Amino acid sequence: MDITEFQKRGKEMVDYIADYFKQLEKRPVYPDVEPGYLRPLIPDSAPQEPENFEDVLKDFERIIMPGVTHWHSPYFFAYFPTVGSFPALLADILSGGIGCLSFSWAASPACTELETVMLDWLGKMLNLPEEFLAGRDGEGGGVIQGSASEATLVTLLAARTKMIRRVQSENPELTEADVMSRLVAYASDQAHSSVEKAGSIGGVKIKTIPSNDKFAVCGSALKKVLHEDRAAGLIPFFFCATLGTTPCCSFDRLLELGPICNKENIWMHVDAAYAGSAFICPEFRYLLNGVEFADSFNFNPHKWLLINAECSALWVKKRSDLTSAFKVDPLYLQHCHQESGLVTDYRHWQIPLTRRFRSLKMWFVFRMYGIKGLQEHIRKHVKLSHEFENLVHQDERFEICAEVTLGLVCFRLKASNQLNEALLKSINEARKIHLVPCHLREKFVLRFAICSRTVESVHVQFAWKHISKLATDLLKEC
Amino acid sequence: MDITEFQKRGKEMVDYIADYFKQLEKRPVYPDVEPGYLRPLIPDSAPQEPENFEDVLKDFERIIMPGVTHWHSPYFFAYFPTVGSFPALLADILSGGIGCLSFSWAASPACTELETVMLDWLGKMLNLPEEFLAGRDGEGGGVIQGSASEATLVTLLAARTKMIRRVQSENPELTEADVMSRLVAYASDQAHSSVEKAGSIGGVKIKTIPSNDKFAVCGSALKKVLHEDRAAGLIPFFFCATLGTTPCCSFDRLLELGPICNKENIWMHVDAAYAGSAFICPEFRYLLNGVEFADSFNFNPHKWLLINAECSALWVKKRSDLTSAFKVDPLYLQHCHQESGLVTDYRHWQIPLTRRFRSLKMWFVFRMYGIKGLQEHIRKHVKLSHEFENLVHQDERFEICAEVTLGLVCFRLKASNQLNEALLKSINEARKIHLVPCHLREKFVLRFAICSRTVESVHVQFAWKHISKLATDLLKEC
Repeated sequence: MDITEFQKRGKEMVDYIADYFKQLEKRPVYPDVEPGYLRPLIPDSAPQEPENFEDVLKDFERIIMPGVTHWHSPYFFAYFPTVGSFPALLADILSGGIGCLSFSWAASPACTELETVMLDWLGKMLNLPEEFLAGRDGEGGGVIQGSASEATLVTLLAARTKMIRRVQSENPELTEADVMSRLVAYASDQAHSSVEKAGSIGGVKIKTIPSNDKFAVCGSALKKVLHEDRAAGLIPFFFCATLGTTPCCSFDRLLELGPICNKENIWMHVDAAYAGSAFICPEFRYLLNGVEFADSFNFNPHKWLLINAECSALWVKKRSDLTSAFKVDPLYLQHCHQESGLVTDYRHWQIPLTRRFRSLKMWFVFRMYGIKGLQEHIRKHVKLSHEFENLVHQDERFEICAEVTLGLVCFRLKASNQLNEALLKSINEARKIHLVPCHLREKFVLRFAICSRTVESVHVQFAWKHISKLATDLLKEC
Repeated sequence: MDITEFQKRGKEMVDYIADYFKQLEKRPVYPDVEPGYLRPLIPDSAPQEPENFEDVLKDFERIIMPGVTHWHSPYFFAYFPTVGSFPALLADILSGGIGCLSFSWAASPACTELETVMLDWLGKMLNLPEEFLAGRDGEGGGVIQGSASEATLVTLLAARTKMIRRVQSENPELTEADVMSRLVAYASDQAHSSVEKAGSIGGVKIKTIPSNDKFAVCGSALKKVLHEDRAAGLIPFFFCATLGTTPCCSFDRLLELGPICNKENIWMHVDAAYAGSAFICPEFRYLLNGVEFADSFNFNPHKWLLINAECSALWVKKRSDLTSAFKVDPLYLQHCHQESGLVTDYRHWQIPLTRRFRSLKMWFVFRMYGIKGLQEHIRKHVKLSHEFENLVHQDERFEICAEVTLGLVCFRLKASNQLNEALLKSINEARKIHLVPCHLREKFVLRFAICSRTVESVHVQFAWKHISKLATDLLKEC
């Protein structure tokens, strides 16, 4: 394919995507396919000779589309949003087009430098403490990770290295393995599964701290476990606090937890993967209070801030904590500027070496929406979740299962888990809207998350009527 | 930005990219900026009000472009290729457009299923042993990782878990920490830095095996170290063999190493990040012989197979080795099909949870180039590297430092390291071509890698004349 054909096909692709968005409401949000549906539809092996673009695009519509879950559909209320936006998409096209990589400053200086400045912009939008910003001569700074899972892992590993060095400097007779065997990390019993995974990858114990009746971890709960673990000879080194848990969007009490972690020399990482975007609105910023005690903070602009995946923002107060945990520096990756204080080599901040030009989409979105436009988007979603909450409240058969703070409503029939499971099944099998469940303690709960960029009151009203009708049918059967 | 404006701007963006490629030869391949150049050029914080697309794109050309290293330029001979292609770019646009994610089968069945089939296609192109393919009921299969670093890490972690379980089942009195403290992994002294990083993340010892005079690890070298380490009470569990090392594209001797690893119960992972793409040509397939002894195999189609980053292909013979190392399964990620043998939940195969629809670009590229088109691309690059090799050979002042097998030529002046460093400096400061160095034993060596999709003999000839002229100038000065 030469440049001229790319120009033609690229524009057809833009039209295809535009049409996709125009028709999106008409597509069933959740696909009606069985596992293994795709393999029989395509050949067993790649063709020897080239095929043409039209055929490939036709096959996309025929083979792929029927198996796609439509995350941008206004009838998609599952998981959490990954909304994206047209400015982000344009930036991604450009990033793919110039195709430069940025594992080191020299590999493409603009990639690295724009990322550092964009993370500063975003940090300021959230009113993050100055220490998290890179500025011209700060010790902190931000980096774009691929996902919150990686952010948690990277900070856990940095904390591990830091604690091993500290313990060894005080007890030179201990080996790294001796220390590792006593290290213990913590997170809420409501924390995301990726925290447990990070602990398991890092080869350290990870314990859950019981959350309270609001599904939040408070200081006393952490203190109790720390006390027991210290008595048993363990070395607490890392606590992952969650702001906006995945099951029900609850908030750990940073203002209680932070001082404890600081006093006990425990690295506090704050995971606000979903909720973080909301903190750009002054009225939700209070939820972030206490971040001043944290060593690192992460949230996913690719969830709720109109930036396409993959874009997870991580800040640390001391970037040397990350780089000293990961630095491996062969000659083919060195460059003459790297010892300058001005230079950031992001490969020392993350698991992968290679990375795309990801900050470009932040720049496009921040400028083309403006802070006001982004705030409007967040506020609209929060308003819609309260609208849904009110509808649930008005129906005596249902109950709200956790406080609605942002864009997620946890609800259920006042009935057995079995009946609620049946309700969810009937909702997803009808394929008009899509939801996923969670467990809150022993209860099976339905999660209604406001997700799409284009979702409006009319879709929320439709969803509720639909759920209500299915519930009526179900209750009749019983 | 509404759909109509996206349609307009998207097409302008396609035109911008087309123009970029048309003008690419005229841009200096390596940017002339100093660290910190960007920050003064843009505001300190994000705008409150929206700005328009034209201004952003104008700023891109004014602020970003001067700081970009042009990886697609035919004068780019640094690192290894990350070529990409127009069909891959089109697929990426489409993937961004529909914006679905695929951490589980249910999150978007088509994403997962196409990935499994594409990795089978690619495995067949390489003539990988049947055991690595998923097929309809295989125990193996492939997954797209973001980078080779992640592939190495994921397999090292899987091997770690497997060995810990094996040792504990034989010695139930040992704790996980006891076993971990004795585990040891191996790689060539020529292996990529990411192997050392993976060992450090995994909290295990990692030792380098001395390579021979061809920079390859042979069986006897591994045997010797294994013997010593077993005698010292260590537990060898993982060997990362490299096919196509980063410094000089040397090849570890799989046919000797594989049987040793199999006999000693050591997981053999084969990292062919760069070289792997060449194995689709029958004349280079011999370089992969011995992969039948490996537990896992990885290479980066985003390096040399015309697929844009990020796309690193990893195959395992037993997918349960990966999934049992990583499986963490909260209710909000469960779905009714997951226990079906047909379903793959790729989140259990990797570090991140979230992933874009990456297999789409494989499908587009394989179909629109055909196997023949891809083979032609590889063959052209290999031919060009031999052309450069011959030019070096004809100049008595220079020497070739390692066998040229694929697209990389390692060469240097027959002179001091200092002089070779000065030569590289003058090459990169002239900004007409871009190269990076490596160390081979005590020698400072220049790496000339054929990278761009559009590089031709004329560019290679130009590069050589340019290098030769700079060398003449430099030698005059001495």
